[in-house]
Amino acid sequence: MSLVVVGTMAYDSVKTPFGERDRALGGSATYFSMCASFFSKVKLVAVVGQDFDNADMKTLEERGVDTAGVEKAEGKSFHWKGEYGYDLNEAKTLDTQLNVLMGFDPKLPDSYRNSDYLFLANIDPKLQQKVLDQMEKPRLVACDTMNFWIDGALAELKKTLARVDILIINEGEARMLAGANNLQKAASSIRDMGPSTVIIKRGEYGALLFHKGEIFSAPAYPLEDVFDPTGAGDTFAGGFMGHIARMNKPELNDTVLRQAIVMGSVMASFTVEDFSIDRLRKLERSEIADRFRFLKAFTHFEDLKEVV
Amino acid sequence: MSLVVVGTMAYDSVKTPFGERDRALGGSATYFSMCASFFSKVKLVAVVGQDFDNADMKTLEERGVDTAGVEKAEGKSFHWKGEYGYDLNEAKTLDTQLNVLMGFDPKLPDSYRNSDYLFLANIDPKLQQKVLDQMEKPRLVACDTMNFWIDGALAELKKTLARVDILIINEGEARMLAGANNLQKAASSIRDMGPSTVIIKRGEYGALLFHKGEIFSAPAYPLEDVFDPTGAGDTFAGGFMGHIARMNKPELNDTVLRQAIVMGSVMASFTVEDFSIDRLRKLERSEIADRFRFLKAFTHFEDLKEVV
Repeated sequence: MSLVVVGTMAYDSVKTPFGERDRALGGSATYFSMCASFFSKVKLVAVVGQDFDNADMKTLEERGVDTAGVEKAEGKSFHWKGEYGYDLNEAKTLDTQLNVLMGFDPKLPDSYRNSDYLFLANIDPKLQQKVLDQMEKPRLVACDTMNFWIDGALAELKKTLARVDILIINEGEARMLAGANNLQKAASSIRDMGPSTVIIKRGEYGALLFHKGEIFSAPAYPLEDVFDPTGAGDTFAGGFMGHIARMNKPELNDTVLRQAIVMGSVMASFTVEDFSIDRLRKLERSEIADRFRFLKAFTHFEDLKEVV
Repeated sequence: MSLVVVGTMAYDSVKTPFGERDRALGGSATYFSMCASFFSKVKLVAVVGQDFDNADMKTLEERGVDTAGVEKAEGKSFHWKGEYGYDLNEAKTLDTQLNVLMGFDPKLPDSYRNSDYLFLANIDPKLQQKVLDQMEKPRLVACDTMNFWIDGALAELKKTLARVDILIINEGEARMLAGANNLQKAASSIRDMGPSTVIIKRGEYGALLFHKGEIFSAPAYPLEDVFDPTGAGDTFAGGFMGHIARMNKPELNDTVLRQAIVMGSVMASFTVEDFSIDRLRKLERSEIADRFRFLKAFTHFEDLKEVV
């Protein structure tokens, strides 16, 4: 039940209303792996530069993450610089330096290819397809994407979508991809593009799952303070895919899917409590269990025998 | 278990992306009463003008609403003219004619005064207090308010808040009233102003309940099409208070509160499917039950014996 992820490993410069951090370890694959490692064996595919700190790689390895698929290339690691205002919902990108990401040509070690679970984090859809091409017969493939690819690489993105089971996407980007304001209509259009399952993330409002005829509304964990939202979406995906891989059912079933989304919410809630993966570094399993159970109580109401 | 409501009865001119309607029967007390009548005996306090159509009064009376507290005054009924854009979240007010509302001095018939439940819809906080003064010993009082009073009559509004058990308020207005962006902090500040229970409405994202140490997240019913959002909040309050009055427990308990909020969501979901109270006119009890049960399934997930 191993889980392959391809995405970015980066150093971020992040400023929020509560502080700032330079060269914070970041990137979609970093957040995803760190998080999913609580649930499953994770095999990481990414590229880093000569400046990448061995201690950072070791942090992941100590959590059991297989880094055989991480290429160390000439040049510097991917760098993102961004800032959040008080509403914390949208990052303002100040600088993006692709660096080694420009020449990235993902190659999967042989030991990765027969994995059952695959997550294609938010990278160039062409690279997502290259990874898919190298997998033998994954049981379940999920992917993420963003406005940049919807705008600039829609044809390639659609080729990826035709080959994945699950799309995990932000509310605004779902609307943009589908050209529909209503989320049910958007999910329905997206399902016509390939994924049988669509998960729409709504930040502090939680997430919606569209799966066969079912819709499920998952809560977000209500935090008094969000310190730095960077990585929330990737950790969400890590908790989601991690739980699915851990449960390892022959068929994607509704019970596990729903729990997996709640687990995504739980894990994202920790990430945003500190810069980088710092909260995840010291996270205890009992804390995960506590928040999962909190969300159960948070959304529970009793059925009525006689409604009116 | 009768339920008194004071609020407005109006004729609205509404334009949405899907159509427009002149002189649509509206007003907070109209929506509230029409909705709550599915659950409880409702006693209405309001003022209308000479132009108010007897047929409209009869519509409410046929649903068992007591209109002995509706005063027919010289002049024209309250009139609101508004327009919604495609996002349907915020109305643009084009015109407000207070008319008979200007001289409104609510007087409760004797038969109203010993009612157990009271809802103060969104009107001048001074009028809300006048109604409170005339009640003998209501078991439970809830109120609504809006930015207009928070901005222009904060001292009076706080006097009302000190005397109510429950405030039902929009997300943006909760933040404004409390001066806090985070909703948990906002709810906590508002509870310091008086209400032991705070319900924050988040439109298509549902509602949050803050009650003693508990937080509950209620879903909104996911609609493919919202036709006209006018009256959604007042119908929400009607379903909420109606269910509480119907259950008629000696103490406000968490189980009933949670169900009541879900009932509010259910009822609001019908109102927005047509102009005015038109959807509620033809609403069947079985439809209410169906949506309540849908929301149960919509938010349900199975607990995990071993979370990680």
